Amino acid sequence: MSQQLSLIAIPGIPLVSPGDDLASLIYQALRAAELSLAPSDVLAVASKIVSKAEGRLVDLSDIHPTPEAGEIAEVCRKDPRLVQLVLDESREVSRIRPGLLITRHRLGFVCANAGIDSSNVGPPEEGRKTVLLLPLDPDASASRLRIELERLAGTAPAVVIVDSHGRPHRLGTVGIAIGAAGAPGLQDCRGRPDIFGRPLRHTEVGLGDLVASAATLLFGQADEQIPAVLLRGLRFETREGSAAELVRPRDLDMYR
Amino acid sequence: MSQQLSLIAIPGIPLVSPGDDLASLIYQALRAAELSLAPSDVLAVASKIVSKAEGRLVDLSDIHPTPEAGEIAEVCRKDPRLVQLVLDESREVSRIRPGLLITRHRLGFVCANAGIDSSNVGPPEEGRKTVLLLPLDPDASASRLRIELERLAGTAPAVVIVDSHGRPHRLGTVGIAIGAAGAPGLQDCRGRPDIFGRPLRHTEVGLGDLVASAATLLFGQADEQIPAVLLRGLRFETREGSAAELVRPRDLDMYR
Repeated sequence: MSQQLSLIAIPGIPLVSPGDDLASLIYQALRAAELSLAPSDVLAVASKIVSKAEGRLVDLSDIHPTPEAGEIAEVCRKDPRLVQLVLDESREVSRIRPGLLITRHRLGFVCANAGIDSSNVGPPEEGRKTVLLLPLDPDASASRLRIELERLAGTAPAVVIVDSHGRPHRLGTVGIAIGAAGAPGLQDCRGRPDIFGRPLRHTEVGLGDLVASAATLLFGQADEQIPAVLLRGLRFETREGSAAELVRPRDLDMYR
Repeated sequence: MSQQLSLIAIPGIPLVSPGDDLASLIYQALRAAELSLAPSDVLAVASKIVSKAEGRLVDLSDIHPTPEAGEIAEVCRKDPRLVQLVLDESREVSRIRPGLLITRHRLGFVCANAGIDSSNVGPPEEGRKTVLLLPLDPDASASRLRIELERLAGTAPAVVIVDSHGRPHRLGTVGIAIGAAGAPGLQDCRGRPDIFGRPLRHTEVGLGDLVASAATLLFGQADEQIPAVLLRGLRFETREGSAAELVRPRDLDMYR
């Protein structure tokens, strides 16, 4: 029999608001769709709904940019208040050019606009602009979601929190794991011999990012908004894991 | 009903040798596994078996490195003959340091060792070292495979040829589309409004790379070597497409 991996879009998750119990919303959606959880399942969740549930919304009119943010905003031609938020969420600036502000996020990874999202955040209102920051600690959010789902469903799936990033060298966004629990972010294959007995060269696989990209195939294309996908049939080492494992340490990053 | 995407490992594809008819091997494996092809299927194939079928094997003892290759080899501490092959396959060097040689491949993308593979290539022989180059023109290989499968099976799946690359900023390899036919490499979502009517920000999705990473979840983990995976249930625009679409033009690459 063929080995098979199924990605199942979880339908019926409502629009999420600050303070919502995300585990409960997902559990109810799973039940309504007659989907039960298995311990070998991986639940991939769009970072956006995690951020919303955690109330990571910011009204730009509350932000008062520093002169530094103003200067950077002139170069990248962005709203100085947004630039201020990006700087607040970042360790250092990586690249600036018109239309583009790339930083090393406080969580360690490098991405545009510190992952701050101004689409799908809420209905446009006169004179207000609300943006959405990434979760404060997405690895902890993933871990919490895993524990709460176990409490509700009796079974703890692995959880991967997925964001959509652009990349150096390549066009088009892909899925990136910014939080993970119950599965390795980085899967170590070192020492495993190839089929002719030589040690394998590609020694570490970005498992969390593979899961994130696979889930992104469904996030984007369904008729309704699909913010969560169940991956069924994946074999992986069960350990606490984290997405932090996937961040290349700054001193090993030749493209910083 | 939930929308679902299935990834099916195609079992029973034998070790591939130069001159083998890859379309025929895959078609026979599909038939033996009682899998039929649908026009909306995406066939993801590991670049390694495409390269092997195309005879892209090189015996390093046939390579005579130039002084330039020798100098680079000293810095990156690699076999000068391998370095020569990497340079021959590349447009320019991007980064060199001990253990690492990153170039812009003649196909446009940036990767380590020009994608040249020295694992799983063949049994080790005394004094010989055979390495495997990437396919000469993987977009053309994908297109050929698609046409030949249509001839054999009566149905043409989209084809994505997958390689495994490391990345700037992040640890762990992921799947990368180096060839594509019958589906967009890059999926343009510009102008499509979000659920509140604002234009979407992430406008271009790296569809070929998402497919490549999803397939890589199965390539790596099966009991037997799985060099081909069928993706069933993906909605995508049917057009000729290419993986070349995914290459960020050099003048737009801030990390070259």
